[in-house]
Amino acid sequence: MAVPPSTYPRRLLPLFLGLFQGTLLLFFALFVTYDEPSAHVEDTNLVANQVYSTFPFFQDIQVMLVVGLGLLLTFLPRYGFSALTHNFLLLNFSMQWALVLQGLLHHFHHGQIHLDLHKLLISEFAAVTVLISVGAILGRASPCQLLIMATCEIPIYLASEWVIVTCLGVLDVGGTITIHVFSCYFGLGVSKALFRTTQHPLHPKEAPTPRSDLMSLVGTLILWVFWPSFVAVLCQPGDAQHRAILNTLLAMSASAITTVVASSLLQRDGKLSPSHLQNGSLAGGVAIGVVADMAMPPVAALALGSLSAALCVLGFRFLTPLLGRKLTLHDQCGIHNLHGLPGILGAAASVLAVLVASKDTSGSHPSQLSPAGGNASEVLEGRWGGRGVGGQALCQAAGLAVAVGASLLAGLLTGATLRLPCLARPPERLCFDDSLYFKIQDQAESPGPDSSAEEGALALKERV
Amino acid sequence: MAVPPSTYPRRLLPLFLGLFQGTLLLFFALFVTYDEPSAHVEDTNLVANQVYSTFPFFQDIQVMLVVGLGLLLTFLPRYGFSALTHNFLLLNFSMQWALVLQGLLHHFHHGQIHLDLHKLLISEFAAVTVLISVGAILGRASPCQLLIMATCEIPIYLASEWVIVTCLGVLDVGGTITIHVFSCYFGLGVSKALFRTTQHPLHPKEAPTPRSDLMSLVGTLILWVFWPSFVAVLCQPGDAQHRAILNTLLAMSASAITTVVASSLLQRDGKLSPSHLQNGSLAGGVAIGVVADMAMPPVAALALGSLSAALCVLGFRFLTPLLGRKLTLHDQCGIHNLHGLPGILGAAASVLAVLVASKDTSGSHPSQLSPAGGNASEVLEGRWGGRGVGGQALCQAAGLAVAVGASLLAGLLTGATLRLPCLARPPERLCFDDSLYFKIQDQAESPGPDSSAEEGALALKERV
Amino acid sequence: MAVPPSTYPRRLLPLFLGLFQGTLLLFFALFVTYDEPSAHVEDTNLVANQVYSTFPFFQDIQVMLVVGLGLLLTFLPRYGFSALTHNFLLLNFSMQWALVLQGLLHHFHHGQIHLDLHKLLISEFAAVTVLISVGAILGRASPCQLLIMATCEIPIYLASEWVIVTCLGVLDVGGTITIHVFSCYFGLGVSKALFRTTQHPLHPKEAPTPRSDLMSLVGTLILWVFWPSFVAVLCQPGDAQHRAILNTLLAMSASAITTVVASSLLQRDGKLSPSHLQNGSLAGGVAIGVVADMAMPPVAALALGSLSAALCVLGFRFLTPLLGRKLTLHDQCGIHNLHGLPGILGAAASVLAVLVASKDTSGSHPSQLSPAGGNASEVLEGRWGGRGVGGQALCQAAGLAVAVGASLLAGLLTGATLRLPCLARPPERLCFDDSLYFKIQDQAESPGPDSSAEEGALALKERV
Repeated sequence: MAVPPSTYPRRLLPLFLGLFQGTLLLFFALFVTYDEPSAHVEDTNLVANQVYSTFPFFQDIQVMLVVGLGLLLTFLPRYGFSALTHNFLLLNFSMQWALVLQGLLHHFHHGQIHLDLHKLLISEFAAVTVLISVGAILGRASPCQLLIMATCEIPIYLASEWVIVTCLGVLDVGGTITIHVFSCYFGLGVSKALFRTTQHPLHPKEAPTPRSDLMSLVGTLILWVFWPSFVAVLCQPGDAQHRAILNTLLAMSASAITTVVASSLLQRDGKLSPSHLQNGSLAGGVAIGVVADMAMPPVAALALGSLSAALCVLGFRFLTPLLGRKLTLHDQCGIHNLHGLPGILGAAASVLAVLVASKDTSGSHPSQLSPAGGNASEVLEGRWGGRGVGGQALCQAAGLAVAVGASLLAGLLTGATLRLPCLARPPERLCFDDSLYFKIQDQAESPGPDSSAEEGALALKERV
Repeated sequence: MAVPPSTYPRRLLPLFLGLFQGTLLLFFALFVTYDEPSAHVEDTNLVANQVYSTFPFFQDIQVMLVVGLGLLLTFLPRYGFSALTHNFLLLNFSMQWALVLQGLLHHFHHGQIHLDLHKLLISEFAAVTVLISVGAILGRASPCQLLIMATCEIPIYLASEWVIVTCLGVLDVGGTITIHVFSCYFGLGVSKALFRTTQHPLHPKEAPTPRSDLMSLVGTLILWVFWPSFVAVLCQPGDAQHRAILNTLLAMSASAITTVVASSLLQRDGKLSPSHLQNGSLAGGVAIGVVADMAMPPVAALALGSLSAALCVLGFRFLTPLLGRKLTLHDQCGIHNLHGLPGILGAAASVLAVLVASKDTSGSHPSQLSPAGGNASEVLEGRWGGRGVGGQALCQAAGLAVAVGASLLAGLLTGATLRLPCLARPPERLCFDDSLYFKIQDQAESPGPDSSAEEGALALKERV
Repeated sequence: MAVPPSTYPRRLLPLFLGLFQGTLLLFFALFVTYDEPSAHVEDTNLVANQVYSTFPFFQDIQVMLVVGLGLLLTFLPRYGFSALTHNFLLLNFSMQWALVLQGLLHHFHHGQIHLDLHKLLISEFAAVTVLISVGAILGRASPCQLLIMATCEIPIYLASEWVIVTCLGVLDVGGTITIHVFSCYFGLGVSKALFRTTQHPLHPKEAPTPRSDLMSLVGTLILWVFWPSFVAVLCQPGDAQHRAILNTLLAMSASAITTVVASSLLQRDGKLSPSHLQNGSLAGGVAIGVVADMAMPPVAALALGSLSAALCVLGFRFLTPLLGRKLTLHDQCGIHNLHGLPGILGAAASVLAVLVASKDTSGSHPSQLSPAGGNASEVLEGRWGGRGVGGQALCQAAGLAVAVGASLLAGLLTGATLRLPCLARPPERLCFDDSLYFKIQDQAESPGPDSSAEEGALALKERV
């Protein structure tokens, strides 16, 4: 499937993106407006308060996705510019595409679509699935392939999210099941179908350098800091949101420490692995999402954070090599360890939390169950749609099954599509290499004093 | 004008800055106080709410200017430390200088000047003009020259902003005309007068390396994320601010994608240019500022973002080389492409928006015109000062003309001042080089195992 | 005390951390719950408003500690990964440990401990002391030694903070005395007891490179931007918080400029020292903390910022070498210059502020004294506990004395503990080297095209 660099097709990307932008403009021109300005002072204050309560969370999430996740992916030393740029491009493309689809799906019967910050946020969440899935094939797929993947993944995510949250009534405020589990297995499906049984020998440009590992760790830390905003932004304001923030902070703090313990124990020489730190520290945030606003005791958040970090590190050490050998499954960034395993753990924890919470309610702490700060019976009958505790627990499990099944199937189909001859993969020699996509000085050449003048001249033809 | 390194004057910088700090202290001691503490509980709540509604925006803007813009300028690989430090120094100097001048100009007749967060924010906006203008001469001017430039630019900016906003009543909530266009042409004027007809051959230290391009891109992404805060901070809370945030998000998202399209189409081999990405992705934010809070349809924001990004990339590809050849105009960072062209486009869009909005109001959507959430007729008569639609459109155009004319003229004069013999420029060999200003290990030397011990000893005399 | 690498004990770290996590889980399971969900709508709104008013500050502080401080410590070019990771690990460990101790100390008599965001914030502040103290011995102590140090420092900090704030009634909203001065002298005490009279010759890996200096400066800038949040988060909302933000902004702005002046004047060739910039720019933030919410005139904040920056730079130039020679005191990051000297200056300023404020109150500006926005007499009798102006001034001085004395003594004892044979120090050859703790490619080896394939293979055994 890979082609020689000379014939590598380069006109497809601008063509595809240009067409998309044109369609987007047309769609917005025909169907999208803003809300009418508020007529009354109280309405203006309401809008102002909504902005003040949502916008800081929104900005935190933007920093996570654009800067944090982008930097996390720069662990490939010669692919940093591509990782940052493709992540940025895919975020914008997927967000706009989700905006169009959501507009068509949910709001079309109202005539005009009224855009607001909340709708943008929902689209941003949809885009996150793409950014996660990309991790499975990072560096070995072309930007065009990634865009086609995004084009397929967004509508499937929206459908799966609709089934899981709206039809099944699964509680998942932080997107553990709907976003993390879904995008992980979608990405693995794409990877399996795209690379089939190809065993990739280790690529010389794949090995992180101390500097690229450091940049990647900075990305991890940025994600770690802002993760509570991601989990809590869609919570009911008040107690539920407060609890979601606290639970996430506790889970991530436990993850950070458990990662060090687990990584150190797994090595004969006790040295820590950078990739364990870069991923394990975040595992608690993935797992906690689904139960963050439930009224579980704080110790459960700590335990969940610890367990998920241990699982993530064990996955890197044992499961990823196993899957590579047995299933020839390629998972470049280890998304199965960061998003798959902790996500499944979180889903299991949510089943438990629902069951335990109900037992508590029949006892002395009636308000402990409430996921949204209301009282327990109201929640049981209201939010859980009168289906009872066992039913809700079942639903959580069913939601997980839907997410895994739908994403794997859709991922395999999408991956098969990416093998179309017109979508050439980068040639093996130029995998993990910025110079295939960017007018950038080759990093292999020594930056000696003689060569720099000449390189400077070449590079500046462009800049000046 | 450039002098040999041995005679390069180094006492001017501390002398100038020390004198300035002394004057500042004296000025503050004589004239500046805080507001009296609120006597009533309601007043305290009011102040608290103002802090909560302004401070997060203020912090976002600080991150943009100090970290984001600083990193964006580190694309010069051996000048990164200088770029970050000079940007930081100029921000603080210009902010304090603007605080003094604004105090003298606007508040003197009240006796004491009452400092608050809003006044600091306004001074910060004034400082932005200096940080942008510097881009034209980055790396070829000494810190002293940059400080003198800031000293001249701030009062001219304040005067020009007063003419444009207060006298002409130009609507420009995001500073497109008052800040971006003004600072761009001021910087170009300075560059022209400072370098005159000198054709700079490509400097070997000017060429970005993959690593410096990566750092610079991180700066771009930080700016991209927080740009909505910059545009929306001074908006009327409520609908107008909400709309400004949404419009900016849409414009920047469209810019990101269009930049990739345009950059890819302009190259024979379809590779993207790092400088296009670093600048084009932000062009939409520059252009949208002037219309962000106006009640235009969302598609206009998308279109404006796309157009400005295309214009920015075209500017880098064709206009900058042309200006360099024909006018011997030196524009190191391409500020004309990022701030000049998109700024003019935004100003033109504001003329159109005013004209179109008025037509709408006479039709079926009376509230579509309102820039601040009030109703249309009130705005026409109130905010536009009774001058009517045509008058307001004319004013927007006049504001642009004032910004371009005043800044070019003042920039040329300032640039001529910077040629004074006492303000020596750095010698050509040490342009774009941190080692002229900082006790920093020379990056040209190979960091071999033999030399590092010795270098360590030298560097540590300072540190320990 | 240092051992050869082959016998360097590596099982202690996971053992210690694992035990700690187990204890933490047990403690949380037995004693910690969340608040009962609010029964009424008004309570829900109250909680929501508390989240909106505290959480953005909390996030800013997290960014400072995790990203900003972490990057600041990466000036050691081969120790960046360790600096970031150890900083991150210590923050989480210390925060959890402070949470346990505070729970036991303050809240045990209420039965259950009710966790909320404010308690997490207080624990975070306790953790800051550890992160500062570490700066004295960075790179020469093992992670285990750092964890033992944290284990000792947190309870002593809590006791000292209780004496200073609760018993003595010292006003110190930004933690200048309780956090900065305490942690500085604790760290110096540890360093003195740990290294005794060992004169460390300059280590070849200790010298910063241009790149590590740049990363470190980025850390400084992040700290600089978010410092006002750190100082103001615990202030009374309203005027006091507003004033604290403004005072901190002014002090830090003055620090930035004075650092350049002082650093430039101290060098014969006028070049600036990176370490002066990295530290001096922040000195104003340290000094202003103790007086930030007092009603002093703005000029005092500027003056304090300037003075503390000058003191910090002078400390780097003269005091640190002197202490090294005369007392064989090792201070790797210069924490005495950044936290000790400016902290003492701030404490002295608070004495002055209390005395001057009282004089003002007897004159024409009765409200100028109020530290919290109330009126003056109320404060004198209320917040100062009826001890009068002289008493309060004395208390501020006594608080400083307690902080210095207690921390030095406790630091010396802790440092002696760290010399226990089981806590081996890293061998001298591997000080300041990531490769002792992390599976990371050695940076000394040239990344030539031949070697990279092989290194890649080695590194990837881990990753894949």
